[in-house]
Amino acid sequence: MSNPLTGSEFDIIERYFKPLTGGHAEALNLADDAAVIAPQKGRDTVVTTDAVVSGVHFLDSLSPGDIAHKVVGVNLSDLAAMGARPFGVFLAAQFAKDISEDWIASFTQGIGEALAPSGARLLGGDTVTTPGPMAFTITALGTVREGGAILRSGAEAGDIVFVSGTIGDAALGLAVLGGRLTELAEDDNFFLARRYARPQPRVRLGMALCEGRTATAGIDVSDGLAADLRHICETSGVSMEIDASSVPLSEAARAALKHQPDLLETVLSGGDDYELAFTAPPGRRKEVLELAQEAGTPVTEIGRIVAQQTGKGPEVRVFAENGMILDLGAGGYRHF
Amino acid sequence: MSNPLTGSEFDIIERYFKPLTGGHAEALNLADDAAVIAPQKGRDTVVTTDAVVSGVHFLDSLSPGDIAHKVVGVNLSDLAAMGARPFGVFLAAQFAKDISEDWIASFTQGIGEALAPSGARLLGGDTVTTPGPMAFTITALGTVREGGAILRSGAEAGDIVFVSGTIGDAALGLAVLGGRLTELAEDDNFFLARRYARPQPRVRLGMALCEGRTATAGIDVSDGLAADLRHICETSGVSMEIDASSVPLSEAARAALKHQPDLLETVLSGGDDYELAFTAPPGRRKEVLELAQEAGTPVTEIGRIVAQQTGKGPEVRVFAENGMILDLGAGGYRHF
Repeated sequence: MSNPLTGSEFDIIERYFKPLTGGHAEALNLADDAAVIAPQKGRDTVVTTDAVVSGVHFLDSLSPGDIAHKVVGVNLSDLAAMGARPFGVFLAAQFAKDISEDWIASFTQGIGEALAPSGARLLGGDTVTTPGPMAFTITALGTVREGGAILRSGAEAGDIVFVSGTIGDAALGLAVLGGRLTELAEDDNFFLARRYARPQPRVRLGMALCEGRTATAGIDVSDGLAADLRHICETSGVSMEIDASSVPLSEAARAALKHQPDLLETVLSGGDDYELAFTAPPGRRKEVLELAQEAGTPVTEIGRIVAQQTGKGPEVRVFAENGMILDLGAGGYRHF
Repeated sequence: MSNPLTGSEFDIIERYFKPLTGGHAEALNLADDAAVIAPQKGRDTVVTTDAVVSGVHFLDSLSPGDIAHKVVGVNLSDLAAMGARPFGVFLAAQFAKDISEDWIASFTQGIGEALAPSGARLLGGDTVTTPGPMAFTITALGTVREGGAILRSGAEAGDIVFVSGTIGDAALGLAVLGGRLTELAEDDNFFLARRYARPQPRVRLGMALCEGRTATAGIDVSDGLAADLRHICETSGVSMEIDASSVPLSEAARAALKHQPDLLETVLSGGDDYELAFTAPPGRRKEVLELAQEAGTPVTEIGRIVAQQTGKGPEVRVFAENGMILDLGAGGYRHF
């Protein structure tokens, strides 16, 4: 038998995927062609889809649980950026042909754990096998009050730029896992690697910033801080001044920079942090900090929105402590 | 340069994917983290997701346009089975690393052509590269009147079983393309191969059967007629009697069966037809035929729903012309 699974696709769905629906009626027990979702009066539906491929978007050495957290986190983070309340995900899993049932058991357990804090359930999906690298696509659905989604396009000159959590940990974690950053203490290595492997989408913070109409624009930091801030500038038609020394760093990242100061570009341009970057008017600074405290996610002021300079397009100017502008090149993760 | 594309991911999205949104506001110009969809009063949202992998779900010799029709057709067919009116799709594309811009141009043109008759637009997606076989996941959204989706679970003893179009063409087309069916005329070869490569989801028929509450249960024929009818029986808790000689066959399929009568099992158990199989009470037979005519899709009566036999589970009994029961084995496409 080339197939180590004891069950058919239908058994696997029954055993490992159906429990992830939590019995929600919308999933129709995963026994139908599609899920059916009742309308929610006064709520827009926010929909995002992201694919992750083994060896491209995650190290193939990651555990099934880590991979599960990654694919869920990446997608819930997009909902968080828009301020949406997640309610369901659809998972298209391309499993390796020789996958074991244990692997699927650990993976689906991870999906359940990663979904739980957000309140989202599995509502449907597709399981196929592939002769190539494993890949997982999640489509995540959430809701916001009608017309209330936080877009990239709402930033205005004068707004403050905030980020949640700490920046650069994931890129440094990837360096640790790749053996390119070796001087750190074991605790720091573990912390950074974990930040890479298990993103924590800032769902509660995003929802809070949306409900009170506090944020004027927002994005999640997936391609790298510099690149993602540039997306806000381009979509809003503004520029941004960022103080590099204000960018919040973890203890582990500080330790890494102490050993290798040239990692600053990795910190500012590396991807996969899945923190939120957002803007809000100065008059709402206090409110932002209060919402962040309630959500249990620290936020830090890192700069301000300014008008575009005459004759120039939207740009992100990152200032070093000495007042010099840091050149981050094109920056950001390029998918092609 | 290992990358023959002249543009970055963002250029490619701008050039080839953004036009597929038709400027729909919900897509936010593909410039945000997610799409935002306004609530539709009195309408449920129907959501399905399906992945296709090159070499697994489609021959890697298919043209980019054929692949586009396949991935769109597979998903719109699931919406058609539920009776939903499609409005948007999300495409997660895993392109080969060495893909050419011409390929992407043809593929995205095919996506547009395949979506057009249904009225659905591209609302979002993700483009990544993979070192493995290309793969495409679409999540398709449609709406039905609240509570009105056609489910697999509504069939009742006495209902008539109908199928749309003709059955078995796609499996025979795959045999043609694979060189296992060589005796046919060129026209028949072309017809069957085309039926395999470019499924025609029965969207209008599905919507018509749903709007008038005509169908009691439905499914699309993707895993093979026998297997998919069994899904209806299992979910509805009924059995089914099918007359093999009533199953509608194309001229090309008849020619193939004349040459190789043992292809009957391929016809009844092969997958990928993407026709609709559905049930309706005998009193609505005339209405079904009228709706089919309006939708421009022929439907044929192939059997009836009966109560489960005492001590037996749900089963599909397929009768040959001589009254003998055909043994189709487990039948149907197995994903594992």
